[in-house]
Amino acid sequence: MEASAALSRIGLAGLAVMGQNLALNIAEKGFPISVYNRTTSKVDETVDRARQEGSLPLTGQYNPRDFVLSLQRPRSVIILVKAGAPVDQTIAALSDHMEPGDTIIDGGNEWYENTERRIHQASEKGLLYLGMGVSGGEEGARNGPSLMPGGSLQAYNNIQDILSKVAAQVEDGPCVTYIGEGGSGNFVKMVHNGIEYGDMQLISEAYDVLKHVGGLNNSELADIFAEWNRGELESFLIEITADIFKVKDEEGGDGFLVDKILDKTGMKRENAASVLKEAGMSDDIASAARVGVDKKRLIDDVRQALYASKICSYAQGMNLLRAKSNEKGWNLNLGELARIWKGGCIIRAVFLDRIKKAYQRNPNLASLIVDPEFAREMVQRQAAWRRVVGLAISAGISTPGMCASLAYFDTYRRARLPANLVQAQRDLFGAHTYERVDRPGAFHTEWTKLARKSGSGVGALN
Amino acid sequence: MEASAALSRIGLAGLAVMGQNLALNIAEKGFPISVYNRTTSKVDETVDRARQEGSLPLTGQYNPRDFVLSLQRPRSVIILVKAGAPVDQTIAALSDHMEPGDTIIDGGNEWYENTERRIHQASEKGLLYLGMGVSGGEEGARNGPSLMPGGSLQAYNNIQDILSKVAAQVEDGPCVTYIGEGGSGNFVKMVHNGIEYGDMQLISEAYDVLKHVGGLNNSELADIFAEWNRGELESFLIEITADIFKVKDEEGGDGFLVDKILDKTGMKRENAASVLKEAGMSDDIASAARVGVDKKRLIDDVRQALYASKICSYAQGMNLLRAKSNEKGWNLNLGELARIWKGGCIIRAVFLDRIKKAYQRNPNLASLIVDPEFAREMVQRQAAWRRVVGLAISAGISTPGMCASLAYFDTYRRARLPANLVQAQRDLFGAHTYERVDRPGAFHTEWTKLARKSGSGVGALN
Repeated sequence: MEASAALSRIGLAGLAVMGQNLALNIAEKGFPISVYNRTTSKVDETVDRARQEGSLPLTGQYNPRDFVLSLQRPRSVIILVKAGAPVDQTIAALSDHMEPGDTIIDGGNEWYENTERRIHQASEKGLLYLGMGVSGGEEGARNGPSLMPGGSLQAYNNIQDILSKVAAQVEDGPCVTYIGEGGSGNFVKMVHNGIEYGDMQLISEAYDVLKHVGGLNNSELADIFAEWNRGELESFLIEITADIFKVKDEEGGDGFLVDKILDKTGMKRENAASVLKEAGMSDDIASAARVGVDKKRLIDDVRQALYASKICSYAQGMNLLRAKSNEKGWNLNLGELARIWKGGCIIRAVFLDRIKKAYQRNPNLASLIVDPEFAREMVQRQAAWRRVVGLAISAGISTPGMCASLAYFDTYRRARLPANLVQAQRDLFGAHTYERVDRPGAFHTEWTKLARKSGSGVGALN
Repeated sequence: MEASAALSRIGLAGLAVMGQNLALNIAEKGFPISVYNRTTSKVDETVDRARQEGSLPLTGQYNPRDFVLSLQRPRSVIILVKAGAPVDQTIAALSDHMEPGDTIIDGGNEWYENTERRIHQASEKGLLYLGMGVSGGEEGARNGPSLMPGGSLQAYNNIQDILSKVAAQVEDGPCVTYIGEGGSGNFVKMVHNGIEYGDMQLISEAYDVLKHVGGLNNSELADIFAEWNRGELESFLIEITADIFKVKDEEGGDGFLVDKILDKTGMKRENAASVLKEAGMSDDIASAARVGVDKKRLIDDVRQALYASKICSYAQGMNLLRAKSNEKGWNLNLGELARIWKGGCIIRAVFLDRIKKAYQRNPNLASLIVDPEFAREMVQRQAAWRRVVGLAISAGISTPGMCASLAYFDTYRRARLPANLVQAQRDLFGAHTYERVDRPGAFHTEWTKLARKSGSGVGALN
């Protein structure tokens, strides 16, 4: 029954939100698909949606055996269930009916080492395996996600035509590429998520400074973010932030909805604030700092600080990827990763095209921040960046993300760091030895003995 | 042969630096000890040292069976080998000859989950198990370490008299206590090490600011740290830092040794510094910032910033311990942990006595920084703290540790954080829902639709 017209080209098991939408996307692109879910009502639901959305070529299956046997060989089955034990259970249920040369593709957010274990287990049965990061949420799954498949190259080649059509499309191709061997697809997705949280953190810090130091209201914030979205910061997250500040609170009175949303850890801290107030803390440090702030200049400074911080954040994410790639021999193509993040996912931004080009100019770039173009941009922005972080600190508004990015920049910028003291401390109490700046070798010193010999402090301070 | 005079009270396997010194310490306190090492020359070495250091009651054994059989029952064997596989190998070699009721004590820096696995495995043979953090390096092991034993309470009681004599002694008792069940001893040691690295980081940042913003030379730094060691910062690490700045470079020319030590990552960054310079970076931001700095005031500010940062660092470490304790049901006594760190280990400091008292006042303290005394100290110091971090940032000297501590403080201090925006973003692109400040429930909003409805920006900016 090879390649019979009645058989589906691919299968998808696990029909929660992501699974349903990805299955419909695949079917819509013209690839006949079989779907399966342990709770069978989800199968009916998906079949109904496929009918309603235009008689898409999607077939429901109600048990693992029929599901697997409904697929063309070599079979490819995407599973989209919760990471961890459910993945193992689904693999066990399906692989009984699969044959050597067939492929399992885990599309969940799995820990990459679990994927590597499963690749090994699958290979013992002659099965191929992919761990595929899928980014873009419900909307991306349905209309074009960013896909990060890692594992068997053969397995990737078997479905490359499908993935290329299903992924988000940008001007330089579909947002999918073969990532590398082993658990590389999951690892890349994890770092992508870290970068995403970093972007959101930095944007919320910019908001905090503009609101509490600059005194901007929500209408002004909406305008500012919309304006920023027409420049170097243009991105999905900046665009939606502008939208958020426009939404009025329609349910519960007047004002803007964003002001009615609880910051997640709000409740727990109430206590602390009152203790600190009792301890003599002034009410509002920010209002003091606000005096004399030039609003226009602050806005421009915050834009520059946000952009420079973003470069450092992406530089760190990319270097995490490079370090793991070197350790595991994945041979990751960092420029290509930047390219497939240009569409479909939450971090999509024009900025990623520039990262792609930086790695095209120099695939061995030690860090994004030493790419000549990015380096120039950071140097141009560093005065504004330092002003914003300094102002925020004096205003009692910590900007931990911008601060950490600035520390990363300064670490690269400076010829020497104060870690020489830490090396001396560790040599003193643990005989860990140290290296010298002026000649090779490992050295150990009897610090305490020599310090005592040198006598007490020489009183050089006046 | 129970309790015969010829049998040793305890055994120790693994005679590298830590093992040798701990064995000699135990013998010196009057507890006959058998020692064993796979490479037998280490056994001879230890026996020799025991003889030279005053005919200490220490017996060398040359195979696992003789070693185990040379011990009084119930037997207690400390192993001090490299964490991971060597521990499993040593346990396998020894446990063959051990009997139900005997105990294995792992004194290495083991990952706490490995200890929990071994506790389970040991119990299947009727063996008891302790994972014991040992802090203080070579010197501590020989003359009095801080000990953090977790696991079987029965096993702890069997050797409590030995541990109490062997540990460092402070005015309120020996630096040892039963930590709790499972891998708690290893987990507590791990957090202790994190706190230790945090202390070293903060001290190196203080050094960096004093040197590059204040322009202090090494003699002045030695005086300052010696002076600080007579106040609220009094601690082993501050004391040795004062000593380090006194040591001249005797091997390689003139000047001070600390200036000749390589900061560990120095080499890699040289490249970056030159690229950034080419990109137009001014040579020395610090010298510009230095202009007009009042040296005396800067020194006093840095002292306050260091102390306030230290409170936040310890608060975070303690809360890590509390969170894990709640998760695992360890019932950790945080005040008692502060007490056993007062001697023997690298973080020993008068400050720890105050932490002990804070938890005695309120064992359920949500964070050290809401203890009324610590809260008052931080409020008093926050202006100086903000000045130092702000000055450092404008001088191009990032102080990531002080900055992160300040962010932690501000997080507690503020009634609301800008995470409401992140909640809105996540609800917009992932339908994650959000909570409201004014009523219970989970809410979802069609942000984009409502934003479009509200029309484009209202142009409130002038």
